[in-house]
Amino acid sequence: MTALHTDLYEIRMAVSYLRRSLTGQATFSLFARRLPPDRGCLVAAGLADSLAFLERFRFDDDELAYLAGTMGVPPPDLAALRALRFEGDVWAVPEGRVVFAGEPLLEVTAPLPQPQLVETALLNFVTFQTSVATKAARCVLAAPDADLVDFAARRTHGLEAADAVARACAIAGFAGTSNVAAARTWGLTAMGTMAHSYVQAFADESLAFRAFATDFPAGAVFLVDTFDTERGVRTAIQVAREFGLPGERLGVRLDSGDLGALAHLARRLLDQAGFLRARIMASGGLDEYDIARLVTERAPIDAFGVGTKVGVSADAPSLDSAYKLVDYAGRPVLKLSPGKATAPGAKQVYRAATADEPDLLCLREEATPGGREPMLVSVMRGGIRQGRPDSVADGRERLRNDLAWLPAGARWLRGPEPISVVHSPALRALTERLTRQAFTTARPAGSG
Amino acid sequence: MTALHTDLYEIRMAVSYLRRSLTGQATFSLFARRLPPDRGCLVAAGLADSLAFLERFRFDDDELAYLAGTMGVPPPDLAALRALRFEGDVWAVPEGRVVFAGEPLLEVTAPLPQPQLVETALLNFVTFQTSVATKAARCVLAAPDADLVDFAARRTHGLEAADAVARACAIAGFAGTSNVAAARTWGLTAMGTMAHSYVQAFADESLAFRAFATDFPAGAVFLVDTFDTERGVRTAIQVAREFGLPGERLGVRLDSGDLGALAHLARRLLDQAGFLRARIMASGGLDEYDIARLVTERAPIDAFGVGTKVGVSADAPSLDSAYKLVDYAGRPVLKLSPGKATAPGAKQVYRAATADEPDLLCLREEATPGGREPMLVSVMRGGIRQGRPDSVADGRERLRNDLAWLPAGARWLRGPEPISVVHSPALRALTERLTRQAFTTARPAGSG
Repeated sequence: MTALHTDLYEIRMAVSYLRRSLTGQATFSLFARRLPPDRGCLVAAGLADSLAFLERFRFDDDELAYLAGTMGVPPPDLAALRALRFEGDVWAVPEGRVVFAGEPLLEVTAPLPQPQLVETALLNFVTFQTSVATKAARCVLAAPDADLVDFAARRTHGLEAADAVARACAIAGFAGTSNVAAARTWGLTAMGTMAHSYVQAFADESLAFRAFATDFPAGAVFLVDTFDTERGVRTAIQVAREFGLPGERLGVRLDSGDLGALAHLARRLLDQAGFLRARIMASGGLDEYDIARLVTERAPIDAFGVGTKVGVSADAPSLDSAYKLVDYAGRPVLKLSPGKATAPGAKQVYRAATADEPDLLCLREEATPGGREPMLVSVMRGGIRQGRPDSVADGRERLRNDLAWLPAGARWLRGPEPISVVHSPALRALTERLTRQAFTTARPAGSG
Repeated sequence: MTALHTDLYEIRMAVSYLRRSLTGQATFSLFARRLPPDRGCLVAAGLADSLAFLERFRFDDDELAYLAGTMGVPPPDLAALRALRFEGDVWAVPEGRVVFAGEPLLEVTAPLPQPQLVETALLNFVTFQTSVATKAARCVLAAPDADLVDFAARRTHGLEAADAVARACAIAGFAGTSNVAAARTWGLTAMGTMAHSYVQAFADESLAFRAFATDFPAGAVFLVDTFDTERGVRTAIQVAREFGLPGERLGVRLDSGDLGALAHLARRLLDQAGFLRARIMASGGLDEYDIARLVTERAPIDAFGVGTKVGVSADAPSLDSAYKLVDYAGRPVLKLSPGKATAPGAKQVYRAATADEPDLLCLREEATPGGREPMLVSVMRGGIRQGRPDSVADGRERLRNDLAWLPAGARWLRGPEPISVVHSPALRALTERLTRQAFTTARPAGSG
């Protein structure tokens, strides 16, 4: 993460602003224009990386040399860029909270070049991590009584993405991750069993299981599908007996075939053998829809390993997110591009205690409506973080509370019914006034 | 990228192998089981990061301390992990080459713990970057006569992913990227115009365009849709006249609405004003299908900015990729899991000069069939890279050649017809023998 992680146009615009002292306070609002298909809500994430990026924002000497040389940025502009830090204010919805389309996830106010230059990074962090946290939360909703484990690292979009995915899954309520680096970074529980290659490296399956039970007697989860799942489960039982493993230290992982039928078969075999507390884990290209189907079938699965489809948020790998100027130098502004119009002004979202009332989108300057909670909180002032650093556990706790608040219809995996978002009378009046101005004068809206 | 970027089970297996000296030469093969929907081929990518990872592979002191403390790895195992480096051989399909389902993209041979530990990272790099290079190449196929620019940085899965996407797009043949950090790292052409916020920050659109023309007279691409596209184009023309900009230094960017109709309108206005060489750029959620439709409509668009949908490979954000043990200690192995069976042995793919013959999948030990080219080349021996480092331009050149070779049916964007892959008689015989052994004995295949 460096300041050069930005689109070229941000640098061009910043240079242009700085040359003519267009450095008035600008507020940009980051929000999702609409929810992806089948999403009843979004789970906010990406704020921690956003704040870390803003705190460290500066062009270093190597970057400035590149801008001077290859990009031909002249010395006076370079000096101005060199001096830039992020010195603004940030209001944001904390990680783990549930939000809806059109509600700001984050608002940044600072002298115009600053929020312009950080657009690319902030949009990236929030869009990606919110997508994945939302997808992961859907898996938790699908199997509230099972343990979920993040197995995504091998197919996320890079290793840095793997770490962000592990963290988003933890916020969503996952029990652990296979990603050791991520577990170390965020204090998550690392989990793992064995691969097919392990079974294949031994002369036969039972030798592989014996070796594993010897090395990891505290928790031996055997992968049983390398050759034939039923035979694999029987071998696991035989080895567990040989080693005197109690049921709670025995597990089997199913990774292919009809997972529901195989889970019933494995449970029966384990129970008949007296391993009533042995656990069954299922994996293999699972998403929330597969998990929900298995839960509906009452498949006796104790833990799901979910990987690729959550790690890339396969059916919605991005959001239709936007980062839009809503106020500049004290005048609210809007944009009228077809399908991409924006509401003007710095905002606040107010939520009622019960979910039978819609969320209220207000101008930030409006008085707090009675009995409602503001969703955006002040997380940075003058470039300095406010409050204690947020932990993964904080996000997890918020999501647990918000999911309890969320009505059943918004939790549905297919055809959900999101909470609606109502614009306050003051916001509506401002939007109408600026739109009228834009259409009736040759000058754009908010040109005051 | 650290050695700890691995799944926990890899470490457990490696420890288990090391304890019992299961350190025979193991070959793992990385391939896509099938092509994603509507893909007629894949464009190989991710090899450069894979080799860099292998070269640097080692557990550092902090990582070992974590494994010792939190993970409870005992001192003798730690010592063995501490000493590990990647000392093996790698055969791989060079970046930019076109491949098909079931063809190895990469094969790693080394003492068993080594290729096991690097599985997660290699699968990640190759799966992600091949997905994106393939998606980007489809955009190039859709608009062979236009310039394509990577605009994805704001919605990729993290900033590291943004850099990998910019590189994959460059291999695919894109003319440039908006991502300044990536442009610097790989010597790509950084490109960028202006955002809506720039237009909004000025009191009116023409003032914004004047400021931009003042600051960037060498190439002024005006974003014309902030309020009304036709008015925006007229303003751009007026400002270009005021500044005496010749047509080749004027451009307009369309970012919303009916891009085809607006491009025709903009072209007419520009031509009427004498700006015959002014360029029209289109952007806004475009993918290869949108681009193909615009090209079919003969929309006069000179450049396409493509972002999110390529950057996350929206309709196929991952591959059904696998990294499977195919040979251990001199004995070929296979796996019979339903739907996930693997072919045994180290392999080579041979390609005919003309695409009317299928690719041939052979055992590596087989003699080269006459008149065919081997697709996998030796890129690392004993942990040391072979040959000169590959550049982005090398990959780009290979793809250009391979796309020229590829028959029309495999280039179709919808319902393509991939080249088929035929297994050699020797490979078929080995697969049959090992499968028969696995079914007819209590011991798994290849147990020798």
